[in-house]
Amino acid sequence: MIGLIGLGKMGLNLIKNMAKQQLDPVGFDIDQKTYPKLTQANIKTASSLVRLIEILPKPRTVMLLLPSGAITQNCFEELLTLLEPGDVIIDAGNSHYQDSIKRYQAAQTKKIDFMDCGTSGGQSGALNGACLMVGGDLKVVQKYEEIFKKLAVTNGYLHTGAAGSGHYCKMIHNGIEYGMMQAIAEGYELLQNSEFDFDLAQVSKMWNHGSVIRSWLIELAQAAFENNNALDNISGVVNMNGEGLWTVEEAMKQGTPAPVIALSVIMRQRSKQQDTFAGKVLAALRNGFGGHEIQYTKK
Amino acid sequence: MIGLIGLGKMGLNLIKNMAKQQLDPVGFDIDQKTYPKLTQANIKTASSLVRLIEILPKPRTVMLLLPSGAITQNCFEELLTLLEPGDVIIDAGNSHYQDSIKRYQAAQTKKIDFMDCGTSGGQSGALNGACLMVGGDLKVVQKYEEIFKKLAVTNGYLHTGAAGSGHYCKMIHNGIEYGMMQAIAEGYELLQNSEFDFDLAQVSKMWNHGSVIRSWLIELAQAAFENNNALDNISGVVNMNGEGLWTVEEAMKQGTPAPVIALSVIMRQRSKQQDTFAGKVLAALRNGFGGHEIQYTKK
Repeated sequence: MIGLIGLGKMGLNLIKNMAKQQLDPVGFDIDQKTYPKLTQANIKTASSLVRLIEILPKPRTVMLLLPSGAITQNCFEELLTLLEPGDVIIDAGNSHYQDSIKRYQAAQTKKIDFMDCGTSGGQSGALNGACLMVGGDLKVVQKYEEIFKKLAVTNGYLHTGAAGSGHYCKMIHNGIEYGMMQAIAEGYELLQNSEFDFDLAQVSKMWNHGSVIRSWLIELAQAAFENNNALDNISGVVNMNGEGLWTVEEAMKQGTPAPVIALSVIMRQRSKQQDTFAGKVLAALRNGFGGHEIQYTKK
Repeated sequence: MIGLIGLGKMGLNLIKNMAKQQLDPVGFDIDQKTYPKLTQANIKTASSLVRLIEILPKPRTVMLLLPSGAITQNCFEELLTLLEPGDVIIDAGNSHYQDSIKRYQAAQTKKIDFMDCGTSGGQSGALNGACLMVGGDLKVVQKYEEIFKKLAVTNGYLHTGAAGSGHYCKMIHNGIEYGMMQAIAEGYELLQNSEFDFDLAQVSKMWNHGSVIRSWLIELAQAAFENNNALDNISGVVNMNGEGLWTVEEAMKQGTPAPVIALSVIMRQRSKQQDTFAGKVLAALRNGFGGHEIQYTKK
């Protein structure tokens, strides 16, 4: 039996995966709106965190799939008061690796085991087989390896090293993802703005068969263009969670140049600006030295 | 029967693919060093361009797989003097799309058909099934579609549009490829320089199973790391052919920002510099205003 805390988009799919893999999961989330659906699917739920811990047989296995930061930290701290020596906490969310190292150490002081598990593959991966990168003590990881192997696609699980390394590996994975996505996005914009009349869905499909850039991301692009070839139903504002930015911060800390990953993060920041103050300054300066025309905003 | 001009790394594999697909190819290259190998494999060769044109039955099908620029242009011009109305030239090399449009027009004046064919998939693709993006008149492309379908993997062939669009599409493909590769490369460098002890071959294998960034490029990375996990047998100097740079020039011409693709090209340029004059200037300026230490070169 395994407890899963956090039944958001990823968690809900992961718990279905757990049930399919006969891991006998019990779900818990503060927001219980998904409970009826889970009950209908014969998946157990717990009415509170305390109740979840009561239900689980010792030694208890608790997996977290919560938003990183305060929510994960609060839950972790509460778990430390509820769990007993020999129990294990697996953080399968996108926590910062340094937080995971600290949590590993805090858990150690209570003889509670801790593993950080970077989870990739999106919602479909969570449901049908994810890609899991797990950091933690070798003995502990080996003890729970079967769980990871069942939840991952074949060969899609790796013990990456010491505590923290799983989330570190996931952070870098996401940094790479940002860069790959930005390069892909720029290419499609060039095709779209070109003198030719490319069918982007067909181009994507062709690229996915035998080209150098064939990838899951180009498959996702194909699906998006098949749905709407001009994407004129969605805006180009791109949000982000922490991992891309953390990769850049890590690169700065290391002194390792990661310019394309950094620029990908910056382009997402730019996507959220309608107009920029920097642009206003540039326009004003051009006007100042060369009398170049300024485009005034409407009042 | 089809004539293939250019028997380099790509051409040699493509002609073997042609033979396998029973397209009855005849190879020609100015450098005839590969001829004995081809003869041994029961593949025909021609001793000269004139001889090649004599061998081919009318209407003749001639495919070029030559380095872009002067070599392709010279061969094309010679072909225009040798071929007759109704013959067809397929440029399967990496020509600039604007050159391909000009060649299409020049061929038109002689009633010779012309198609530009962007070829992706590397050497293995050329041998076992490539990804082909073909520009040209619909009627002409349809007439020769069987050839492309036989040389490409299933669904790996597309008529992209008017003459020039095939090489345009390939140019953008390569621009995307540059950006994806640079992002991937930066991510691995961060893993390598991290406080953890990642096995990059194993990480790559895991990423290739279920992760968001799974792709042929990560598969190639896996193979490279399996061969030498530290890559300490190769230098980090990265050469390039034209297409990445052309993508940036096209972006500039369009006024479409393609910052990550541009930066990927720039990082390749930087990889070829041992030291930089810009760096010397920065060091001198820091020393000038702040007395900051300079690292002097050894004489």
